[in-house]
Amino acid sequence: MESTRYEMLANRLAELIRGGTFAPGDRMPSVRQSSHEHRVSISTVMEAYRRLEDTGLIEARPRSGYYVKAPVLSEARIPTTAAHARKPIHIERASLFEAVMDTVADPRVVPFAAAAPDDSIIPKAKLASISNALFRKHGGAALRYTLPPGRRELRVAVSKRLLGAGIKASPDEILTTHGATEALLLALRATTKRGDLVAVEAPTYFGILHLLRDLGLRAIEIPVSPHAGFVVEALETALKKHRVAACVVQPNFHNPIGGLMPVEAKQRLAALSERHGFAIVEDDVYGELGHDGIRHPSISLYGGHVIHIGAISKTLAPGLRVGWIVPGPHFAEIKRLKSIQCPWNATLSELMVAEFLEAGGYDRHLRRIRQLYAVQCARMRQAVVSSFPDTCRVNQPLGGFVLWIEMPAAFDAEDFAVRAMAENVSLVPGPVFSASGGLRNCFRLSCGFAFGERTLDAVALLGKLAAR
Amino acid sequence: MESTRYEMLANRLAELIRGGTFAPGDRMPSVRQSSHEHRVSISTVMEAYRRLEDTGLIEARPRSGYYVKAPVLSEARIPTTAAHARKPIHIERASLFEAVMDTVADPRVVPFAAAAPDDSIIPKAKLASISNALFRKHGGAALRYTLPPGRRELRVAVSKRLLGAGIKASPDEILTTHGATEALLLALRATTKRGDLVAVEAPTYFGILHLLRDLGLRAIEIPVSPHAGFVVEALETALKKHRVAACVVQPNFHNPIGGLMPVEAKQRLAALSERHGFAIVEDDVYGELGHDGIRHPSISLYGGHVIHIGAISKTLAPGLRVGWIVPGPHFAEIKRLKSIQCPWNATLSELMVAEFLEAGGYDRHLRRIRQLYAVQCARMRQAVVSSFPDTCRVNQPLGGFVLWIEMPAAFDAEDFAVRAMAENVSLVPGPVFSASGGLRNCFRLSCGFAFGERTLDAVALLGKLAAR
Repeated sequence: MESTRYEMLANRLAELIRGGTFAPGDRMPSVRQSSHEHRVSISTVMEAYRRLEDTGLIEARPRSGYYVKAPVLSEARIPTTAAHARKPIHIERASLFEAVMDTVADPRVVPFAAAAPDDSIIPKAKLASISNALFRKHGGAALRYTLPPGRRELRVAVSKRLLGAGIKASPDEILTTHGATEALLLALRATTKRGDLVAVEAPTYFGILHLLRDLGLRAIEIPVSPHAGFVVEALETALKKHRVAACVVQPNFHNPIGGLMPVEAKQRLAALSERHGFAIVEDDVYGELGHDGIRHPSISLYGGHVIHIGAISKTLAPGLRVGWIVPGPHFAEIKRLKSIQCPWNATLSELMVAEFLEAGGYDRHLRRIRQLYAVQCARMRQAVVSSFPDTCRVNQPLGGFVLWIEMPAAFDAEDFAVRAMAENVSLVPGPVFSASGGLRNCFRLSCGFAFGERTLDAVALLGKLAAR
Repeated sequence: MESTRYEMLANRLAELIRGGTFAPGDRMPSVRQSSHEHRVSISTVMEAYRRLEDTGLIEARPRSGYYVKAPVLSEARIPTTAAHARKPIHIERASLFEAVMDTVADPRVVPFAAAAPDDSIIPKAKLASISNALFRKHGGAALRYTLPPGRRELRVAVSKRLLGAGIKASPDEILTTHGATEALLLALRATTKRGDLVAVEAPTYFGILHLLRDLGLRAIEIPVSPHAGFVVEALETALKKHRVAACVVQPNFHNPIGGLMPVEAKQRLAALSERHGFAIVEDDVYGELGHDGIRHPSISLYGGHVIHIGAISKTLAPGLRVGWIVPGPHFAEIKRLKSIQCPWNATLSELMVAEFLEAGGYDRHLRRIRQLYAVQCARMRQAVVSSFPDTCRVNQPLGGFVLWIEMPAAFDAEDFAVRAMAENVSLVPGPVFSASGGLRNCFRLSCGFAFGERTLDAVALLGKLAAR
């Protein structure tokens, strides 16, 4: 019996080493600790460790214990993922999207798929010093539970910030969220019920479509113009036939098309909302990234039942996960829903963002990155135009940092994305942005990260792939 | 017309000052900035500011601008909340719970309602130095987007930690979450559909009940013993009549009753799960807080379809919002669901926790707080026994830091909670922990925070209230 025991233990430990729980160079748990953890005798552990030593997985170091030897098949893991991505076959949309997103953290892949600010843009020194000051000021309280509606310091700072968008909301009218996506989920849950119809832009940010599917909502597509964004006339036509519960719109620097709704369009949409009684869910995460430096107002400045949503993910630091929502009359319901699904907030993150907004030079930071994004978009657009076939069209974004490329009707962007991934370049194909699975001849390239040789080479490579 | 404009602006600004957007001592936006933000002329802003000065809300300081004067009605806000809490009438359960939770951050209220570690327990100096080191090591990358399944560093550290609970999960089998509540939501969504029956403990952690209601699930109550936790026989009986989709259980140091399932009970529950095909959702957030220092194993050590859930909220720092889930065969589905609802993780938080688990002295920290919690529970229990009528019963928790008090059958804990809140002492009444709204004669007191004169006085006060 004892021999089976130590073999079983040795097999389990070998799995843990291959799985990465114990990495090359790591000290293995002491014999005593393993005996406790695996509920076996000391001698069984010693037998198992000797077995692992014999098979070359670990080595004993005098007076120090057992260590995982390198290399331990860590390279052997790579082809699995890569092979999955390389398949030049039709892949179901959701899984292609997941495959693309799974590569975002891979440093070997040029991440045109990620609509994220470059690491170099994140004001890390300032945020680090703010974090230090907060630990000194609050001690453990900087890491205690925070309940909805969120830390008051952040709601005060956001309240001031929103004035720039023409929104007068007191701190008590604002809820902080775990980024903008949670805010979108809360807004949709508060204003719709299963089966309701929601007007969405075509194309639109894919996260909105994922939420609609998950909540059992139906979508009606409203086209978006590269210049003027949301085409209000199309919604007017739709409203003659359908009852719409909510309309999700990105009025200022639309993702992925870069458009900006003119004042008249905002006024008309606000009036429609009041006349027909639907909620406008306003996703304004790119609102402060106008390339000309102008902060364009929220639709709510012109009326309408507007739920406003913002975040610092595109401007400051996505990994802090700080967003907000101004829910108007839905405040109590949204606070209730948040208390059920995500009842506590990331206190330190909220305090860090509050301090940066209040005293960290946010406006100066925004001025710097707006110019940077404008330059990166222009250079990337130039690179696309000169590398791609003449038949391609590229938007000229007025803000934000994504390019939307439209190819001739026969072009298959999903197939293109699979071939690009095989060459270690990621991008997001058009159907991911479409409720109806259309836009097959389009794709999105992000210019959020630093522009350089590598980017140029990757665009040139995409141009060659597209020409085939 | 112009006179109406400046009056309107003055009224809006006055609202913002009363609402707290601009606090006493704050400098108001410059005339130029306000003119831009409110889209009015410079002269309109100047008129409005003069009006605010006349009404005593702001004051001009030479060469510096306008400042909000103190005091600005900030004290006038207090009675509203307090009056709401003082009402000695029947309050609907959900709203009483919200009223209790709204007081948790109020420093004037003794927070027996909050099952949270005291601020003084959070190892802030170590976490601050870890945060610094992470900024130095990763730069902006410490604040970039992280996609599910979460930062590998954290999954590796959790994978090692889980060995202590008898769980062999590789880092690739673990997903990190925004605390344990998100993990519970994901586990329930992956294993149930609307209308399904879920076995829950009575009493149980209220967050579980909120999720069940929100997901349209039905509950069947399984009693919990103060010593041995989950009463498996009751589930066996229920399974003769009903099909159960999932069973949510806190095997190690149950909240709120403090019990611990013996090995035999875990084995029987695991066998039932296999025989009847239901999922065991194991909430193990108190698992490392055994007062005797023993780490009791996960039910999965004995088999069963177990989804294991853990977090550092009760042991390290709730405000970091870091938890995890080991979903077994539901991994892909839970990753998909998380990608829809909460698609990015708090990168810095995850890195901080990973580093603390790997090299921050987590075991030493646990040894210290386990002893502290044991002492606090014992002292608080003693205080309750000597302050409350002889008819009260108090559990003797084997781990964690909550006391569960049972009064005679006629006692109304909701009324008691309302009266206690009026005296600035918070607690959670029994029906909040009951799917059927029972347990009216019980309530929970947390001993997570530092014990002292103030705690003793508050317990004495509760004793007097209870005697009435």
